[in-house]
Amino acid sequence: MLAEIITIGDEILIGQIVDTNSAWMAQQLNNAGIRVKQISSVSDDRQHILTALKEASERANLIFITGGLGPTKDDITKTTLAEYFGVGMVENKEALDNVLRIFAKYDRPMLDINRLQAQIPENCEVIVNKNGTAPGMWFEVNGKIYVSMPGVPFEMMYMMEEDVIPRIKTLFKLPAIIHKTILTVGEGESFLAARIADIEDSLPKHIKLAYLPKLGQVRLRLSGQGEDEKQLSTEIEHYTAKIVERVGNHVAAEEDITLEKTILNFMAERGLTLSAAESCTGGYISHLFTQHPGSSKVFLGGAVSYANQLKESILSVKHETLETYGAVSEETVVEMAEGALRNFKSDYAIAVTGIAGPDGGTPDKPVGTVWIAAASAQKTVRKKFTFGSKRLQNIERSASAALFMLNTLLKDV
Amino acid sequence: MLAEIITIGDEILIGQIVDTNSAWMAQQLNNAGIRVKQISSVSDDRQHILTALKEASERANLIFITGGLGPTKDDITKTTLAEYFGVGMVENKEALDNVLRIFAKYDRPMLDINRLQAQIPENCEVIVNKNGTAPGMWFEVNGKIYVSMPGVPFEMMYMMEEDVIPRIKTLFKLPAIIHKTILTVGEGESFLAARIADIEDSLPKHIKLAYLPKLGQVRLRLSGQGEDEKQLSTEIEHYTAKIVERVGNHVAAEEDITLEKTILNFMAERGLTLSAAESCTGGYISHLFTQHPGSSKVFLGGAVSYANQLKESILSVKHETLETYGAVSEETVVEMAEGALRNFKSDYAIAVTGIAGPDGGTPDKPVGTVWIAAASAQKTVRKKFTFGSKRLQNIERSASAALFMLNTLLKDV
Repeated sequence: MLAEIITIGDEILIGQIVDTNSAWMAQQLNNAGIRVKQISSVSDDRQHILTALKEASERANLIFITGGLGPTKDDITKTTLAEYFGVGMVENKEALDNVLRIFAKYDRPMLDINRLQAQIPENCEVIVNKNGTAPGMWFEVNGKIYVSMPGVPFEMMYMMEEDVIPRIKTLFKLPAIIHKTILTVGEGESFLAARIADIEDSLPKHIKLAYLPKLGQVRLRLSGQGEDEKQLSTEIEHYTAKIVERVGNHVAAEEDITLEKTILNFMAERGLTLSAAESCTGGYISHLFTQHPGSSKVFLGGAVSYANQLKESILSVKHETLETYGAVSEETVVEMAEGALRNFKSDYAIAVTGIAGPDGGTPDKPVGTVWIAAASAQKTVRKKFTFGSKRLQNIERSASAALFMLNTLLKDV
Repeated sequence: MLAEIITIGDEILIGQIVDTNSAWMAQQLNNAGIRVKQISSVSDDRQHILTALKEASERANLIFITGGLGPTKDDITKTTLAEYFGVGMVENKEALDNVLRIFAKYDRPMLDINRLQAQIPENCEVIVNKNGTAPGMWFEVNGKIYVSMPGVPFEMMYMMEEDVIPRIKTLFKLPAIIHKTILTVGEGESFLAARIADIEDSLPKHIKLAYLPKLGQVRLRLSGQGEDEKQLSTEIEHYTAKIVERVGNHVAAEEDITLEKTILNFMAERGLTLSAAESCTGGYISHLFTQHPGSSKVFLGGAVSYANQLKESILSVKHETLETYGAVSEETVVEMAEGALRNFKSDYAIAVTGIAGPDGGTPDKPVGTVWIAAASAQKTVRKKFTFGSKRLQNIERSASAALFMLNTLLKDV
């Protein structure tokens, strides 16, 4: 079963927003055994939407459309869908009740354009939007299914999870699609590839291997498709085991999780706690950990010590150390890590201090200079990095390096 | 001048990664006066890539391709481009020198597959990749330009900024495209639309208005295209001024910046400082501020006080308060904000404590219950929110609400 995703909205094509909906939808569809053939982003333009619908329907049986359902004039998805199917628009009672319900809930006056949200093409079924006023729409035309949903992520997500995916599962017998990801750290893509070349060559045609590199990490992904889920699963496990054995201690996880989640799992199993002392990463590392459910078992918290006075007051970095060596120095990062360990009473701590840029560099310490430390009661490791000139990249690379150092320290014991 | 972007890679179609490259490229192209007609994500599949290239070339004159240039077997973009153009592959000296340079720089042994990175279709010019081994490629065929670049964001970004965009600017006389964004807070999309309906109706055909809602904020974007940049700019400014006047105190900024950047600018101009006390947002608010260059002038730092012991030790929340009212309570959030103000010596502070979920809820305080406070020496405002069941959304919505409260408090004085 092939699907296509069409996202509608000029804001994507001018780069004002990043399309995160498509990746999420693709994940859900894949998990249900539906392969996404193409994702297309098109403008709020009648003719362009019509062409995109036609092209997608020639390649796929399921067409998912997001965006362009707002109450304002730039949103033309509904009327364009009606034109595409050659039908008129009608006011739908279910959709209107939902609009009324939402306005009643927030006790706000309803405007005429809000009532327009209940207008839908007459050949569709309404998918009720529990979180907003724009109805979702389900069309079945010439053996193809078209689903139109709002572009607001959480409105779309609830519809997909609660209505669309379950409905598709009852309609079709779907093949099994299995993805298996191995997270590796500290070894480059080409070295990994050379090391497992013979395993890759021996893969059957219905199983593919992909390399997904990202700042010091490479995810290896085996993807298989087949009728017999159990047999496919056995095959995938077989090749996973071969690769894991070959790649050895560079394997951080045998599932599609992030490095910080691997660390959280490892520490949770051992009852270990963690804190962070962040200067140039400014809370990003803490955010990486705390975005995961259950992180509070391991991650106690930490300091975002942007100003020197906070390095002293929260982390007990010595005033002389900052005066003598500066905020971005081996001495300071070690005191930050050990101060976090002591003041926050955690088993492990990571500390980062650096010059994220674009300003603040000196000849001695150019923008991109970052000191990172990882500490336990037994040992403090520290390392200097020289990244580039781009602030956000420096923050991300610092976080990635800090996680890698902590992971190594944890496994080292 | 119309462009299309094709991103190649199964990882996008199975939702393993979010395509952030396209939004960035679209922004750069728009700034240069090039309109992006469509963005398509296709799989690492020969036939599919060939079809996508053909379809894109029928709609646009500039085709930008990212991804599929790695040294491993799943990457087939180069050979597929050669097939598309009907040419052979050759080893390119410039590309090879670059591969050798990079391996020499990192002092690593070079493998045979790394040498393969210097193989390119014989009809292209190399775009040197200063940050990696995969060369970029520039093709001019039948009056169309095709540019193939790596999918690794910072490799692609350097190529676009340093080579591709400047080269395109010398080749074409491009029309002016101007986008103007007005950031509004605290007013719903449909209310805004009703309020400015007559201004929207009076817009000339070459200027469009779009509404971009996002959790308590709506960005209004005017987009115009024309030959005469100066005249277009005057027109856009004219309509911007009309809208800003009408929307009044809901306008947070007259540029396309985030709410936190608006706050940073406002505080920097007044020499004010800020700190944060984050529990359930876990560093996310600090990260939002510190991702911006120059944030250290305003943002002193803060505490990620996930564990109660850290709320006490760093923020001086009273033990009795936590015992009596719990960590998620009005009393605690006020002490967190006022503790941050006092301990971190900032002029303003924000504090967030809540249950992000998916676990940890109680009948009294279900998942999604969040208390937020914003404080200055004169005043502490606090409010309880009841968000939903999804952890990441709760974190984002809490951050957005906290920024909104701080913004209101700042303007209130």
